[in-house]
Amino acid sequence: MTTQVIVLNGGSSSGKSGIARCLQAVLPDPWLTLGVDTLIEAMPVSMQTSAAGIEFAPDGAIIVGPEFRTLEAAWMEGIAAMARAGARIILDEAFLGGAASQQRWLNALGPVQVLWVGVRCDGAVAAGREIARGDRIAGMAASQAEIVHHGVVYDLQVETTHTEALDCARAIAASVL
Amino acid sequence: MTTQVIVLNGGSSSGKSGIARCLQAVLPDPWLTLGVDTLIEAMPVSMQTSAAGIEFAPDGAIIVGPEFRTLEAAWMEGIAAMARAGARIILDEAFLGGAASQQRWLNALGPVQVLWVGVRCDGAVAAGREIARGDRIAGMAASQAEIVHHGVVYDLQVETTHTEALDCARAIAASVL
Amino acid sequence: MTTQVIVLNGGSSSGKSGIARCLQAVLPDPWLTLGVDTLIEAMPVSMQTSAAGIEFAPDGAIIVGPEFRTLEAAWMEGIAAMARAGARIILDEAFLGGAASQQRWLNALGPVQVLWVGVRCDGAVAAGREIARGDRIAGMAASQAEIVHHGVVYDLQVETTHTEALDCARAIAASVL
Amino acid sequence: MTTQVIVLNGGSSSGKSGIARCLQAVLPDPWLTLGVDTLIEAMPVSMQTSAAGIEFAPDGAIIVGPEFRTLEAAWMEGIAAMARAGARIILDEAFLGGAASQQRWLNALGPVQVLWVGVRCDGAVAAGREIARGDRIAGMAASQAEIVHHGVVYDLQVETTHTEALDCARAIAASVL
Repeated sequence: MTTQVIVLNGGSSSGKSGIARCLQAVLPDPWLTLGVDTLIEAMPVSMQTSAAGIEFAPDGAIIVGPEFRTLEAAWMEGIAAMARAGARIILDEAFLGGAASQQRWLNALGPVQVLWVGVRCDGAVAAGREIARGDRIAGMAASQAEIVHHGVVYDLQVETTHTEALDCARAIAASVL
Repeated sequence: MTTQVIVLNGGSSSGKSGIARCLQAVLPDPWLTLGVDTLIEAMPVSMQTSAAGIEFAPDGAIIVGPEFRTLEAAWMEGIAAMARAGARIILDEAFLGGAASQQRWLNALGPVQVLWVGVRCDGAVAAGREIARGDRIAGMAASQAEIVHHGVVYDLQVETTHTEALDCARAIAASVL
Repeated sequence: MTTQVIVLNGGSSSGKSGIARCLQAVLPDPWLTLGVDTLIEAMPVSMQTSAAGIEFAPDGAIIVGPEFRTLEAAWMEGIAAMARAGARIILDEAFLGGAASQQRWLNALGPVQVLWVGVRCDGAVAAGREIARGDRIAGMAASQAEIVHHGVVYDLQVETTHTEALDCARAIAASVL
Repeated sequence: MTTQVIVLNGGSSSGKSGIARCLQAVLPDPWLTLGVDTLIEAMPVSMQTSAAGIEFAPDGAIIVGPEFRTLEAAWMEGIAAMARAGARIILDEAFLGGAASQQRWLNALGPVQVLWVGVRCDGAVAAGREIARGDRIAGMAASQAEIVHHGVVYDLQVETTHTEALDCARAIAASVL
């Protein structure tokens, strides 16, 4: 019943990556952090701006094409196999499809023990942090803040509007079996 | 009496760079953001780890050598000339020498109108954010949190422990003449 | 008999990553590029400088610890599963263990169809390119130039000393089934 | 008659930045590397995609707006002041305006001793290297390869199509007074 995968699901600029790094620092065993950004960086540059791959709408919304879905499905199978082979994995995700995204991961992970964590941040606060970061397309934080949680079922939720990443990580670590 | 330079002085991981990007977004005119990190990146790689340049002590403290000081003095003269030539400049700084660092900038800037801003963050909170960032040498946040403010005189101080970067930026912008 | 994985093996600064990006541009199907750098970035920061993880000797040599090996084994299983699930994968690798490194991948990949490509670069030229990049520890290029090829068996070798990355990529693409 | 500034002028992906890092490594004194990319990074994010700042045409061409020009003029004054104050400076530039760009620098630098270096690269080769880098807008290399040299007068030219960055740097260093 040992936790094999921790899924951090939250909108852009909600603070997931910072929590992931803090989790790696506070958990006693070594954990790998992977996620949708790893997958996107692995794709051809051309797929990052094409109808087949990923498109960014003017309001920061993301549209994902069929070739993205195909590679993503194989990626998920690979992550599940890594976990079964003994790697502890933190997944840094933004479930743009809400419950449907979670179901895809459930199908891929099968019996792997997962801790599902919702990372919540007030949309206006996340939008401000998006400006402070300066490396994200304006509007992603606001457009994703709510939809990524739609219909998703969690074991635990953390809230970064008023809580530091390290404190969120400690709360999550306390739930890791 | 127009403000020509905004100096943001604070320790590592206190949130200066995020405030600078928010300031650039909220101020009506275009401002350049430069700072000690720009200078370090401009230096030869070899000076970033040598007795003549910059050394990182095991506790995250930074020791600066004589060749660094020489280049820094010319850099400061250049920044002052940019401001006199009409560029509005935000300086993202960590005054490791406290009041002495401020005096060096006062000497270089001369009659240029400066808004001196202290960026405060609780040392333990900054140390947690340093872990969340994952790209800074552990210990810099804690070792710099207090010393960078020692003897420094400010027009305005902001506090990032419980205040978002965008809100700090709005408070600073309200003091820009 | 379709090629499912392309392994690019070569020393640091031999030009593997540039060839990988060119391959992604010239191959008609979408390929993912992953590799040892992806794995290292996924690890906790602490493992990147510890006896359990990775250590950099003063001459640029890399020493890999037992916890690195454990995570790497699970990573390899996961990559193999991704390929079996239909993802086409370019692996950007530096076989510090020579033939033993290749054997580990052979064990993990099993019947997956692999194109093994050696990326050769004259050690002195690679050392010069390491200086030009400015983001690698000095000495890695020279120390790895020969050892990564020791005992490794290839389907194809390319040479970046006098050949552009795009031309190497075209030669490799012509061998992809 | 000591050289105070080395200007490296060439198109995107012609290899200027690599030559600059090699120059910093081979020259006996410490030199700062600054350039148009430093200036762009210092600007507000909004100016990097606006009619007032910088625009990227679909073919990779760059269009520069009036607010960019104003900040650039002050930046040039500042660089000149840094050089007069004793900093040795390598400028990594792409003279999109050809001779007019050089004239602007001549006006700003006045009596400062400059070594003007043209960095040439065959357009097709530079375009291939742009693909290999993967971080530049496709087309910049080809569109800039010739125009940046139009009417520019050099003390020295180097050619990166068949010459390594380190060898180019050594040739340039031999001309530094």
